[in-house]
Amino acid sequence: MILAHITHIADICAKSGIKEAILSPGSRCAPISLAFIRHPDIHCRTVSDERSAAFIALGMAQQLEKPVVLICTSGSAALNYAPAVAEAFFQQIPLLILTADRPAEWIDQWDGQTIRQEQLYGKHVKGSLMFPDEGSIKEKIWHARRLINEALVLSKTFPMGPVHVNIPVREPFYPLPEEEFTFPMDGQVLETIPVQHHLKEEVLIKLKSKLESYQKIMVVPGQQRPNPQVQKLLDELVRGHKAVVIADAISNLQSSSTVTHHDLILQNPASSEILEPDLVISFGKSIISKALKLFLRNAEVSHWHIQPQGYVPDSFQHLTKIIPTSPDYFLEFLLKNGPEIHPPFEKSWGDNERKVRKVLPEILENTAFGEFKALYKIRPFIPKISKIHLANSMPVRYVNFLGLGDGGQEIICNRGTSGIDGSNSAAVGCTFTTKEPVTLITGDMAFFYDRNAFWHKYNMANLRVIVLNNHGGGIFRLIEGPSKLPELDEYFETQQRLEADLLAQEAGFDYLRLDQENNLPEVLDNFYHKSVRPKILEIISSSVENATVLQEVKKAVKQLLSK
Amino acid sequence: MILAHITHIADICAKSGIKEAILSPGSRCAPISLAFIRHPDIHCRTVSDERSAAFIALGMAQQLEKPVVLICTSGSAALNYAPAVAEAFFQQIPLLILTADRPAEWIDQWDGQTIRQEQLYGKHVKGSLMFPDEGSIKEKIWHARRLINEALVLSKTFPMGPVHVNIPVREPFYPLPEEEFTFPMDGQVLETIPVQHHLKEEVLIKLKSKLESYQKIMVVPGQQRPNPQVQKLLDELVRGHKAVVIADAISNLQSSSTVTHHDLILQNPASSEILEPDLVISFGKSIISKALKLFLRNAEVSHWHIQPQGYVPDSFQHLTKIIPTSPDYFLEFLLKNGPEIHPPFEKSWGDNERKVRKVLPEILENTAFGEFKALYKIRPFIPKISKIHLANSMPVRYVNFLGLGDGGQEIICNRGTSGIDGSNSAAVGCTFTTKEPVTLITGDMAFFYDRNAFWHKYNMANLRVIVLNNHGGGIFRLIEGPSKLPELDEYFETQQRLEADLLAQEAGFDYLRLDQENNLPEVLDNFYHKSVRPKILEIISSSVENATVLQEVKKAVKQLLSK
Repeated sequence: MILAHITHIADICAKSGIKEAILSPGSRCAPISLAFIRHPDIHCRTVSDERSAAFIALGMAQQLEKPVVLICTSGSAALNYAPAVAEAFFQQIPLLILTADRPAEWIDQWDGQTIRQEQLYGKHVKGSLMFPDEGSIKEKIWHARRLINEALVLSKTFPMGPVHVNIPVREPFYPLPEEEFTFPMDGQVLETIPVQHHLKEEVLIKLKSKLESYQKIMVVPGQQRPNPQVQKLLDELVRGHKAVVIADAISNLQSSSTVTHHDLILQNPASSEILEPDLVISFGKSIISKALKLFLRNAEVSHWHIQPQGYVPDSFQHLTKIIPTSPDYFLEFLLKNGPEIHPPFEKSWGDNERKVRKVLPEILENTAFGEFKALYKIRPFIPKISKIHLANSMPVRYVNFLGLGDGGQEIICNRGTSGIDGSNSAAVGCTFTTKEPVTLITGDMAFFYDRNAFWHKYNMANLRVIVLNNHGGGIFRLIEGPSKLPELDEYFETQQRLEADLLAQEAGFDYLRLDQENNLPEVLDNFYHKSVRPKILEIISSSVENATVLQEVKKAVKQLLSK
Repeated sequence: MILAHITHIADICAKSGIKEAILSPGSRCAPISLAFIRHPDIHCRTVSDERSAAFIALGMAQQLEKPVVLICTSGSAALNYAPAVAEAFFQQIPLLILTADRPAEWIDQWDGQTIRQEQLYGKHVKGSLMFPDEGSIKEKIWHARRLINEALVLSKTFPMGPVHVNIPVREPFYPLPEEEFTFPMDGQVLETIPVQHHLKEEVLIKLKSKLESYQKIMVVPGQQRPNPQVQKLLDELVRGHKAVVIADAISNLQSSSTVTHHDLILQNPASSEILEPDLVISFGKSIISKALKLFLRNAEVSHWHIQPQGYVPDSFQHLTKIIPTSPDYFLEFLLKNGPEIHPPFEKSWGDNERKVRKVLPEILENTAFGEFKALYKIRPFIPKISKIHLANSMPVRYVNFLGLGDGGQEIICNRGTSGIDGSNSAAVGCTFTTKEPVTLITGDMAFFYDRNAFWHKYNMANLRVIVLNNHGGGIFRLIEGPSKLPELDEYFETQQRLEADLLAQEAGFDYLRLDQENNLPEVLDNFYHKSVRPKILEIISSSVENATVLQEVKKAVKQLLSK
């Protein structure tokens, strides 16, 4: 077998339960790709644009919660993975990145497709390993297997993340036509046994007494996948008057008992003092709401973060305790041992949330049609059991204003780096892992930026893309600074002219379009009808009007809450 | 003035003769962008996809031979520059990359669009500098100016290349609507005086005597821009029987006296011994011809490389001397002091080249229509004074087979990393610097990969794109290994379905199409007609037939030379 040491990679991956690989075509990577293609337990797909390929793998791994393999050839191909690698690193999504390379002696010798691939992803991978450049002796095979075992363990250990293995490959790259690969192969496979992090009795006693010194406890879950166990605990905490829970859409923990309209509530300085917690308990990853972040940064508050291991950011500038256990373990403890919270604090949040929940639909019913109202109107049509991918920057913010989540739908967004660069691809990757409908809600900038997400031939029938097209970066009109500058039109909004119809035609999507409210129900019914082809619904709006509507809505809520 | 220390960047750039910047929209980079937009001597363009933006800047800087400024916001935006940055590094093209960043205290705190930007481009930049995060004291302003001066000097010093300046920016990002920026500003501007590298008299004497020990001297110019002075010296060297000159298309030094068909000549082992040089003298950057590289690696030969400074790769595995001066200086010395070369060596090369030049057109006239023949037929229609951008991987190889260059046209190709990822964008960048026609010859994979090159609103009327569409990575059928594997269709060629008509419609190009030879002259006349809009000519061919044609042509040439 040619390059047998490389074939071991596929063997270990399969034995470690990896089932999915995304390949991009190339010659030097051929032996790696062939090992995966020919392995009976691994499913390979080919995506030509490596930038999209990597975000597709990310979208899959986010759902599968285990590494998806990425394989590309040497040279700049590997650099096109970089945006997705950084997103995976900060969103803690496992990827095994296998880049083919020239052997060391040929680096920097002006041969084609040769760059400096060692440590290519800098500080945005959990590990960067150099694979042996041949497998002629037993030690090299052990080394090869050991490296892949290490890479997989590293990628899967909490916090999960991308690991890079750079693989020097010498010619010949291709087996003979009649040559067959044999699996399984001999050698070690490394497994890590899962662990539970418990706190010592004396620590729990101290925490209990410390908790009693607080009266206004706020729980803030960050980005995470749906977790019914944690959801239940949060609801019980609220019912037991143990905490106010503030849940962003991407926490996937919004419910009838959580606050979900904090983005609108916290724009009102008048009401803010009574809403201030004295202890914030957070877990999960980042939150979207800038209003909440600024509010907590300005508050006098202690902040505890629950996380089994890994670095903990000080998002609110008050971090004082890291609690190294799982959220459900600690929330259960809090439920049993936390004090009852101060009623005015609890009541203010409850009142505000109730008022906004009641009035926001009325306000939106009476605004002009545009992207905000469209999303509000579309919300009831999104299938109850489904995945919703949100693009940066405005879609995720609108959805956070609306409080879209209700438990049945998983809300997903690239909030690791919050880029617009791979939103389509991540959603495409998601469709590869589920039969549920996947709705991507995106803006025109993110949509056209990542159009190569659709440049492959795999089935995406369950994908539904809603493009909020305002012909440019509408967000720049929605924020204070640039909206008044003479440079707004050309340099910030950019006023791009594309619409999605031609892309739909090219990429094999059905295309629907809305620019007014009237026929929305029929269009949406049609949109979510089962189909052989995926569908795009383009909603055309004016960024000037969108800015007015958002201002009106925020103002109306503010007035309401001041009463 | 807000963030005055940032405004100094534009001031120094303008005073150093920089006139062009490519911006990508963002909020954190707004103060940097505004400083450039408002500077009266700098011309800014906005390109939304940073990957394309960076390759566009590269295409401009390649022509201008001075840094083009790139400005993007924080987060993954900067990572999308990475493929072009690596290409610029290896192709030695100057870029000044300005990335906005959060201030140090906010890195890794889960805020949006925040990654680890220090040293982001690893070993693919000449320098990576961290700009001061504020400018409240005089030392900081001096530091700010000093850094930009250093960055520009570094970028412009031979070998030129990309330099990264990471710029932490604190809010507020936007000036007040009535606020005005003032240029010029006070402070240093650093200039490097050009130098000439001369060799000492005693060294020249030694070199002369060393040269006399060789009888078969071959000069191999690598990739470079057209240089009439060097061209003249090479022609004189050949006429004076001082050397055989082997010139790839990308050397821009092909002429009636140089060998240009070495790719076809060297496939013939029978004739190769008599063609072997005993001394190779090279200058410039990489060469395309794999046949020539392998031939020289297998030969018994000494290799001298002429280059004023910087690292010198050992491309032929025989490098023994680095001559640290300019090519024209040394070639002039060689012309005066080199020995006459061995007549059979000179004659063999001359005979082979003459035969191929004579017979290749006859062979091509008699082959089936496809991408090879189309390029041969198109060649006379390409305007004499113009730029030709070639994409990797097949277009540049076809053109090298044909020996397309004849002095009037500059041949340009991304041979730093030899990726397909930025071919469109580099050509677009080129159109921004010249009124001459710019012809991009590309394959369907490279063309669709980089389609966002056209996603902006700037005039590209002088751009002509020839897309050789064989619906996939045809190269995999043209090379030995993969063409016989069962995985060829799905995993190597990928068989993509797109054609360029819809893209043309979207991006505002006129669209022409050829799938047979008959009406080629009319179509080409029309294609090169002056127009308000740029044009795409799509040539549809079958990768199976293309493979057959290439094999036939190579075989016919081989038979001819064996006679």
